Amino acid sequence: MKHFTRLSDVKKPQKLLKNALKLKQDPLASQKLGKNKTILLLFFNPSLRTRISSEKAALNLGMSCIVYDASQGWKLEFEQGAVMNIDRAEHIREAAGVISQYADIIGIRTFPSLTDREKDYADAILYQFQEYASVPIVSLESATRHPLQSLADWMTIEEFRKKKKKPKVVLSWAPHPKALPQAVSNSFLEWMKVADVDLMVTNPEGYDLSPEFTAGIPIEHDQRKAFEGADFIYTKNWSSFEQYGQRLEVPEDWTITPDKMKLTDKAYFMHCLPVRRNVVVADKVIDSKRSLVLHQANNRTYAAQAVMQEILKSL
Amino acid sequence: MKHFTRLSDVKKPQKLLKNALKLKQDPLASQKLGKNKTILLLFFNPSLRTRISSEKAALNLGMSCIVYDASQGWKLEFEQGAVMNIDRAEHIREAAGVISQYADIIGIRTFPSLTDREKDYADAILYQFQEYASVPIVSLESATRHPLQSLADWMTIEEFRKKKKKPKVVLSWAPHPKALPQAVSNSFLEWMKVADVDLMVTNPEGYDLSPEFTAGIPIEHDQRKAFEGADFIYTKNWSSFEQYGQRLEVPEDWTITPDKMKLTDKAYFMHCLPVRRNVVVADKVIDSKRSLVLHQANNRTYAAQAVMQEILKSL
Amino acid sequence: MKHFTRLSDVKKPQKLLKNALKLKQDPLASQKLGKNKTILLLFFNPSLRTRISSEKAALNLGMSCIVYDASQGWKLEFEQGAVMNIDRAEHIREAAGVISQYADIIGIRTFPSLTDREKDYADAILYQFQEYASVPIVSLESATRHPLQSLADWMTIEEFRKKKKKPKVVLSWAPHPKALPQAVSNSFLEWMKVADVDLMVTNPEGYDLSPEFTAGIPIEHDQRKAFEGADFIYTKNWSSFEQYGQRLEVPEDWTITPDKMKLTDKAYFMHCLPVRRNVVVADKVIDSKRSLVLHQANNRTYAAQAVMQEILKSL
Repeated sequence: MKHFTRLSDVKKPQKLLKNALKLKQDPLASQKLGKNKTILLLFFNPSLRTRISSEKAALNLGMSCIVYDASQGWKLEFEQGAVMNIDRAEHIREAAGVISQYADIIGIRTFPSLTDREKDYADAILYQFQEYASVPIVSLESATRHPLQSLADWMTIEEFRKKKKKPKVVLSWAPHPKALPQAVSNSFLEWMKVADVDLMVTNPEGYDLSPEFTAGIPIEHDQRKAFEGADFIYTKNWSSFEQYGQRLEVPEDWTITPDKMKLTDKAYFMHCLPVRRNVVVADKVIDSKRSLVLHQANNRTYAAQAVMQEILKSL
Repeated sequence: MKHFTRLSDVKKPQKLLKNALKLKQDPLASQKLGKNKTILLLFFNPSLRTRISSEKAALNLGMSCIVYDASQGWKLEFEQGAVMNIDRAEHIREAAGVISQYADIIGIRTFPSLTDREKDYADAILYQFQEYASVPIVSLESATRHPLQSLADWMTIEEFRKKKKKPKVVLSWAPHPKALPQAVSNSFLEWMKVADVDLMVTNPEGYDLSPEFTAGIPIEHDQRKAFEGADFIYTKNWSSFEQYGQRLEVPEDWTITPDKMKLTDKAYFMHCLPVRRNVVVADKVIDSKRSLVLHQANNRTYAAQAVMQEILKSL
Repeated sequence: MKHFTRLSDVKKPQKLLKNALKLKQDPLASQKLGKNKTILLLFFNPSLRTRISSEKAALNLGMSCIVYDASQGWKLEFEQGAVMNIDRAEHIREAAGVISQYADIIGIRTFPSLTDREKDYADAILYQFQEYASVPIVSLESATRHPLQSLADWMTIEEFRKKKKKPKVVLSWAPHPKALPQAVSNSFLEWMKVADVDLMVTNPEGYDLSPEFTAGIPIEHDQRKAFEGADFIYTKNWSSFEQYGQRLEVPEDWTITPDKMKLTDKAYFMHCLPVRRNVVVADKVIDSKRSLVLHQANNRTYAAQAVMQEILKSL
């Protein structure tokens, strides 16, 4: 594996999944692999789970980890040929080239604008870093995907799917007071396509995700109908893709409640966190024994570690 | 020791003191103890001494240290049952649960509101973290106490008390341009009760600390009288407890001056820092040979190390 | 070497240069030297290269590195005898004294005010830290100098000068939308005086640097004339020294263009970064094969490492 920004970067996803589950059993097994290697984590946006689990993963592999908050540094320019006479002090070409000389792997978090769909969906910042860097790039969530989250989610589903051959996994939209990216949801669908599950999306009209990610997956606009017989309810808010970045009015109540969970086949509740309690999900659901949110967060460490391990081996 | 948030968390305070003084002689003695362990330091408020001495203490014990500035992350909700539809993106329940999976010990700094006395004195943020975390919690200063500071102060008094059996220790209020927490002062009194000293507090009328901390300790409103025969003058500003969080007008001059120090029995001057020179204390006092402020700061490393060491041993 | 703040702190600059070039060949050669030593990097201003390359250098030497962003902490007072009753919570005397007890070396970045020339050129903050600290101080760029950059630049010139005995090195001013410090330029001239080069400065009238740094170096106000026969064009913007901190209007175009580079003897292009593309330098120049900007940035690690190594040996 050279880079880790999307599913297609991974040659054998099933093998990566197995390695992640294996590392969870023995996190320090490869502690010599990262000796004298450095990963730099570059954050253009806030982070709790990704920030800490990635640093922990690096430590487990014996790597050094340098965390760099982009707000500490120079404002970056991403346009080619720009005449940089306003406020952006450094071009991505220099930034990526320079950092590559100080680190063996670069992790980057960069959120979408939610205003320019074309640019967001080209994931311009992430892929410009990849272009101008000379070392592997790991996405710590980009404008359109969050593959470390998806791998951790897949691990969680594998751990709890025991009883069923092809569990029904429903990605359900839920309300939120702010317009949020589509990255976690896009990425979840992308990775679930290679998991052995029966996948469905449910969201209000106007909230259909990009066809690039929903192709071949049934979209159900009746949430209650979608929940019937579900084994996993994966919940996430996202802003509209069609009316890009907008929060459209939704007349019905889409919050995940105990009432709705009763429609499922005793489904597990999943969410990537952070989550707005009693807006996205009722306390009674997230605090129930069938809530997997802490399991998912825990798996973030081993997902990151499996990815870093595979990259380290290829250096 | 499970947690370290107040004196009552410590079974044998005298033993902890001795360990801290011993570690000062040989800081790297337990460097293998922390191998493959991680402490996460979570700051809701600014810090210099605590931030650096705690990281140094962790390094001395061979631990990894992850520093997390809460302002980098999601704004936290602390109310149970809250409908989180405004600006707080993550509930303490998830934050504490998640971080517990990435770290073996969590250190937390959280200052009081100075507006809601009941909530501040319940130390709600600290103890909610303790409730929802699954790993030990170390206070890096909470709304009501600063036990790492108190242990370092106690070490300092032990080192300089040589001549006297029961030295007179005076906690003196001093002026300050801002309303400050009562935590350092509360905590100092709490810990001095188990030190073998003759303890007194002096502060202007209206500035008496909470009876929870002053019970059994004489309060003298005449600063000069309190200073007579003192061996240690521990200085600190605090806002009013009675008129909670207020800066009440004080007609007399409470700054620590050479003139006042002459009333003592050649007392040492102590302050936890940061200190407002020529407001809290005159340059001539803090720059004198009897000023212990740098000694106190130095002891912060070994106090933190003794606490982490005891917690590591109990894991 | 006790401190590293300017050329005169270095007894044998040529030896330091050789050590830096040697470390570049084998960065992990002295990995045991820094065991159980800690460097603290204190930033009063933003940084990318210095921040990361210094941490990398410390890791290569086996040291622990604590990064402290001064904006996280208490606002510092630098005036002696100040009555600290406004917003500055801690005096440099305490801050420097305290940090010295937690770290074996302290690195400091502190930019000039660009309003008070006398104070800036006394480098008051840096040298007060040096005065009140009890451990070695390394400048991570001060008000008047950036010696780690200069050492890395010197390394780069040594690596690329092969053909010529005494290459012509031209420091050229270039335009910039903001008023910038003179530190990099001052420092470059200071260090080039001990390099075996033919040195010249070119800048518009009104932009002559401090005579302290330009003494004995020809200043040419005609940029094209200066470029004739040059082997290295070192470009940098700086604000006026005479009309201190001002951005004076410059009628001619001082941007570094392919056209101007043709006047040179196939000169290499150098810049310390970050650089404003198409303001300071045209894309075609910085993207050409004769651009050394990434080489310079790479050498920052080994320059820092050579300095830290020499200080560690003297501890």
